Amino acid sequence: MRNSEYDENRMILVCNDDGIFSPGIRALAEVAKEFGQITIIAPDRQQSAVGHSITVSDPLRVTPFQINSKMEGQAVNGTPADCIKLGHDKLMKRKPDLVLSGINHGSNAGINIIYSGTVSAATEATILGYPAIAVSCTEFSESADLIGAQDATRRAIRYALRNGLPAGITLNVNAPAGPLKGMKWARQANSRYVEEFEGRIDPHNKPYFWITGRLEILDEGEDLDLNVLKKGYATITPIQYDLTAHEFYRNQAGDLED
Amino acid sequence: MRNSEYDENRMILVCNDDGIFSPGIRALAEVAKEFGQITIIAPDRQQSAVGHSITVSDPLRVTPFQINSKMEGQAVNGTPADCIKLGHDKLMKRKPDLVLSGINHGSNAGINIIYSGTVSAATEATILGYPAIAVSCTEFSESADLIGAQDATRRAIRYALRNGLPAGITLNVNAPAGPLKGMKWARQANSRYVEEFEGRIDPHNKPYFWITGRLEILDEGEDLDLNVLKKGYATITPIQYDLTAHEFYRNQAGDLED
Repeated sequence: MRNSEYDENRMILVCNDDGIFSPGIRALAEVAKEFGQITIIAPDRQQSAVGHSITVSDPLRVTPFQINSKMEGQAVNGTPADCIKLGHDKLMKRKPDLVLSGINHGSNAGINIIYSGTVSAATEATILGYPAIAVSCTEFSESADLIGAQDATRRAIRYALRNGLPAGITLNVNAPAGPLKGMKWARQANSRYVEEFEGRIDPHNKPYFWITGRLEILDEGEDLDLNVLKKGYATITPIQYDLTAHEFYRNQAGDLED
Repeated sequence: MRNSEYDENRMILVCNDDGIFSPGIRALAEVAKEFGQITIIAPDRQQSAVGHSITVSDPLRVTPFQINSKMEGQAVNGTPADCIKLGHDKLMKRKPDLVLSGINHGSNAGINIIYSGTVSAATEATILGYPAIAVSCTEFSESADLIGAQDATRRAIRYALRNGLPAGITLNVNAPAGPLKGMKWARQANSRYVEEFEGRIDPHNKPYFWITGRLEILDEGEDLDLNVLKKGYATITPIQYDLTAHEFYRNQAGDLED
């Protein structure tokens, strides 16, 4: 697995939100190993759409695992953000030089960024001061061809290693399934889900709802992540966890006293 | 409850993350009723620190509830964001003119914004196009005096009704317990938790971890939400769900081809 980019003094923490049995984390670990030593700390089960949840009211357990004698690490009964926090504070003797999260099975572009456990793991790493990259493949299927997402990951890692990442900035990468056609910087598309719930009646005659819906783009621009992906390119979007709406903020005069 | 600000044609959706039995949602509903008709759609149990989770893999159930013949609404076995989405798409015959989330028992200032279910309900409402305000009291106790947080809520509602809120902007309000000393616009303080986990051994001799830690401010500035709160004032912070780091983005030239 070693190539000229391998540095044995580089420690890379690998996480995801689909859990340790996901093909995506295996694909990501393969790429990470080309660049350095790796430690896998990831949820013990599927944690999609958990957003930036952390586990406050339950204790966290950590279980070492080995899968097919190819991949080993530590499984946590918590969220992606829990994994990063616990890795940082308790599980890693040596702090990581880089944190990777993914490869998610399903897009984390547009408004999906908000709901994404994959992105939240990378964001949590950024909060704690580590360079971090989230990677997703736009195809949901567990059998999706991740070769392009792996190439996109390599490019994002090279970018981060060469240029460094400013404090507070996380890289969010998305790639279509199949070989990489190219990769472009992109903005998060303003978007939302419409027609979201499907109502059903259970065998006991009680109603319930499944979340569903299709993504609607509210913005225009060739450089929106969702639009770039539609053209077949992978995207890389710098995101931040400072949510302050600074322009709006600067224009407030007061108007709160009553 | 009616005063000169009451408008019977105004529909206000009330949600929270502490669940329908929390004193905070009762306090918020009281304030909301001064301004219009209200509909409560909230989690059926405590959902703190769920961030912007949505429920993808389980069906959602909706149960009408009435508490002490004073408060009625619909309880959802999901997250705060689920409640808003379901209210918007299926449960509310008439769409809300304003969405309120809270009053959370515990601060949602600084980095807490990221983990907050209270804020995520308001953000989800903003995504769907409704003016929305999240409100939190910095004291965790369920018996905290919410009178100041209620006053801060009134001021934030008046602001939103008079000025409107631009698309994509959510108001995030925090207030100390007790009477309101004053209320100021503030920025999200760059901050993080340090010393986060407490390791313990269970009665079966197995280790487990509780999340804990203290908040560290990484920024300087009198107008940071955490600093304003320390001085005893309530804060109001405009936040956005566009996470793109625009300044960083504008300065990228390419450098991704390899």
